[in-house]
Amino acid sequence: MPDALSPVHAAFGQALRELRAERGMSREAFALAAGLNRGYYSGVERGVRNVSLTNIAKIADALELPASAVLARAETTRS
Amino acid sequence: MPDALSPVHAAFGQALRELRAERGMSREAFALAAGLNRGYYSGVERGVRNVSLTNIAKIADALELPASAVLARAETTRS
Repeated sequence: MPDALSPVHAAFGQALRELRAERGMSREAFALAAGLNRGYYSGVERGVRNVSLTNIAKIADALELPASAVLARAETTRS
Repeated sequence: MPDALSPVHAAFGQALRELRAERGMSREAFALAAGLNRGYYSGVERGVRNVSLTNIAKIADALELPASAVLARAETTRS
């Protein structure tokens, strides 16, 4: 498994894994709900994709959270 | 001036304009502080660049705010 792009990307991916798991969704089901390619989304969770604002917004919508709350979770995860 | 990529991008750019202006910084000085190309950063403020997590983190660092707070400002701007 390749290393994450940065600690920020690793923490963002870790937050997504947690938030998705709390919703009882598989990566596949979640990627479908967010309208993202399954392999791409898997890379976001692993921190190896430099996710854009467009895709951050899609992910936040699928989590039914504001994007700021997703980032805040990542900041907690990181510390 | 081209239209913003989406309301999310427009609101993010508007929030950056406000946060930067509150700090009394020009776009040029701010882009330099964030380590971003001046023309690229100008496009982010106009909402025409699909800014990545790497660059969101650089911008937040230059604003001395968590990325979540920058996104939260954009969510306020948007409503």
